[in-house]
Amino acid sequence: MSALGLDVGGTKIAAGLVGLDGSAAEVTTTPTAGSGQAVVDQITGIIDEYRTAHPVTSVGLVVPGGVDPRTGVVAAASNLGWRDLDLLGALRPRLPPSVALHVDNDASAAAWAEHRFGGHGQGDSLVLVTVGTGIGGGVVVDGRVVRGVSGAGGEVGHLPLHPGGRACECGSSGCWEQYASGRALHRAAQVAGWYTETAGRDVLRAASAGDVVAAAAVAEVATHLVHGIVVLTAVLDSALVLLGGGLGSDPLFQPFVHAAASAATVTPPRRRIPIRPASLGVLAGVIGAADLSRTTTRR
Amino acid sequence: MSALGLDVGGTKIAAGLVGLDGSAAEVTTTPTAGSGQAVVDQITGIIDEYRTAHPVTSVGLVVPGGVDPRTGVVAAASNLGWRDLDLLGALRPRLPPSVALHVDNDASAAAWAEHRFGGHGQGDSLVLVTVGTGIGGGVVVDGRVVRGVSGAGGEVGHLPLHPGGRACECGSSGCWEQYASGRALHRAAQVAGWYTETAGRDVLRAASAGDVVAAAAVAEVATHLVHGIVVLTAVLDSALVLLGGGLGSDPLFQPFVHAAASAATVTPPRRRIPIRPASLGVLAGVIGAADLSRTTTRR
Repeated sequence: MSALGLDVGGTKIAAGLVGLDGSAAEVTTTPTAGSGQAVVDQITGIIDEYRTAHPVTSVGLVVPGGVDPRTGVVAAASNLGWRDLDLLGALRPRLPPSVALHVDNDASAAAWAEHRFGGHGQGDSLVLVTVGTGIGGGVVVDGRVVRGVSGAGGEVGHLPLHPGGRACECGSSGCWEQYASGRALHRAAQVAGWYTETAGRDVLRAASAGDVVAAAAVAEVATHLVHGIVVLTAVLDSALVLLGGGLGSDPLFQPFVHAAASAATVTPPRRRIPIRPASLGVLAGVIGAADLSRTTTRR
Repeated sequence: MSALGLDVGGTKIAAGLVGLDGSAAEVTTTPTAGSGQAVVDQITGIIDEYRTAHPVTSVGLVVPGGVDPRTGVVAAASNLGWRDLDLLGALRPRLPPSVALHVDNDASAAAWAEHRFGGHGQGDSLVLVTVGTGIGGGVVVDGRVVRGVSGAGGEVGHLPLHPGGRACECGSSGCWEQYASGRALHRAAQVAGWYTETAGRDVLRAASAGDVVAAAAVAEVATHLVHGIVVLTAVLDSALVLLGGGLGSDPLFQPFVHAAASAATVTPPRRRIPIRPASLGVLAGVIGAADLSRTTTRR
C-alpha cells in the first residue's frame, strides 16, 4: 500500500514513497533529462524503478506550471518545455489500471502536504506562497485545494499588483513575482549598486550583517511580498500564510518579512497577518503528490 | 416549511419568505429604525409578524459587515452601529428552539443565492462583487461559501490595491473601494470638474451620451474595478465574476466595465475574465439568507 510521489522540476526530479503519516522514504533525486518527451520517458523510468522494488498502489506527479488534476492536462510548464500536454494520457498506458495516477501543480500539492502534515494546527485553511526564482502558490480552503475552473487556482505569482509596471514573462505587466522573488531581489540589489553576478543569498547575508544598501533591497522585496500576502488574506481570510521556496524559507529573509508584515493589517477585521515558514521543506511537493494520489478520483 | 430571509441594511430592512426554488414571496421593506439595540428590537418585531402569519421554520438574517455565521457575532456593521454584537445570542431567546436561525454577511448570502438560483450555469464557483457606495463581495468555491477564519472571507472591498494611496474609512489606505465604487465615481467626476452635488447616475448618463469628461471618469472607475476583479480571478480562477449593487448592476456602467475588461487577461492561463451582471437583483440577500437558514448547523 505504498504511494509514490514525484516532484518534477526543471533541473531535477525528486521522488519518494510516502506513508499515511506523511513521512517520506526511499527518496531519490535525478537531474531532469532535458525537456519535452524526454522528461515523460524519464518519469516513466523512475516510476518503473520504484514499482520493481516496492508495491506501489498509487502515483502522484507534480509539475511547476498550470495543470488541471481533473483532466491531467498540463496547460503550460515552461521549465519542462510542455504546453497542452496530456500528461495523464501519456502515462496512463504505461501503468497497470490498478495503480491510481494523479497529476497536479507542485505548489498546490505542497500546500496540501502542509495542510495535512505540516503540524500547523490552524484549522482547515491556509495559503502557501513559494518564493524562489519566481512565486508559486497553493490555497487550501475548508480542507480542500482550490482548483479553479482551469486548474490555476492559487497560482498567485501573476497577481497584477502593479498594472502597467514591470514586464513579466507571462506577457502581462506588474505581476507580483516581478517585485517579490529571488529574481526581484537580484534586480533590487543591482539597482542599488551590487554586481550583476551577486547571488540573492549574498545580498541576504550582507543585509543581515548590517549593510544598509543590501538591507534596503531586501526590505523592498519583503514589502512587496507582504503586499501580495495582504491581498490574499483580504480575499480568503486564511488562518495562516506559509512561506516556502528558496528565498521564502531562508531564515535570513524572515526578519525582513516580519518587519514588513508588522506594519500591515488586513481589514476587515483589522488583524495581524499570520505568516509562518512552511515546515515540510523541499519534500513538500513529493509528499503532497503521493498523498493526493491516494484519494484521486481520476484513474 | 417556510424559510424567512431578512436583509438588514443601514437604511432599510427587506424581508420575505423564500421557496425551495429561490422564489421570494410576501416581500416587505421597512425603514431601518436608527441603530444599535433599536434595530435588534425591530428585527425581532418583523420576525414575529411573519411568524404570526406563516409557518416559519427557519430565519436567515444578513447584515452589511463582518459577521461570522459559525458564532453569530457581528464584529462590525458600521451602518447599523454594531460592534462585537452577539446577534445570534440576542435573537435566539426570542424564538422557539424549533426555528433555526442563521446570521451572515449580506454579500456572502447574495453570492450563495446567485450560485444556487442565479441561473448562471457555470459550475460551482463564483465571485460576486457588489458595487454600490462601497464594495462588498462574496465567494463561492466548490459549492461552498468561503468564510475564512474570522468570517471575513470574500469581503473584498478593502483589498489593498494601492498601498499608501487614498485613505479609507477602515483605517488603511489604497483600498479597492476607494477607487472603484459609487463614491469613487463621484470623486472622479468632481476631480474632472462636475459639481459636487451631481449623483453618480447623472455622470453615467452623461458618459453614455458621449460627454468625454464624464466618460473619462467612468472609465477610470471601471478600470480600477477590473483591476481588482483580475486580482480575484488570479487567486481563485473562478468560472464567473458577477457584478451586483447599485453601480455594479447599472446597465449604463456595463459597457465601460467590458471595455476595461477586454484589455485585461488573467495569467496563468491567459483567458478572458468572465464578468456578468448578477441576476437576482436587490432580493439576492433575502433569498440567500433564507436559503442558508434551511441548512444552518447553528441553532
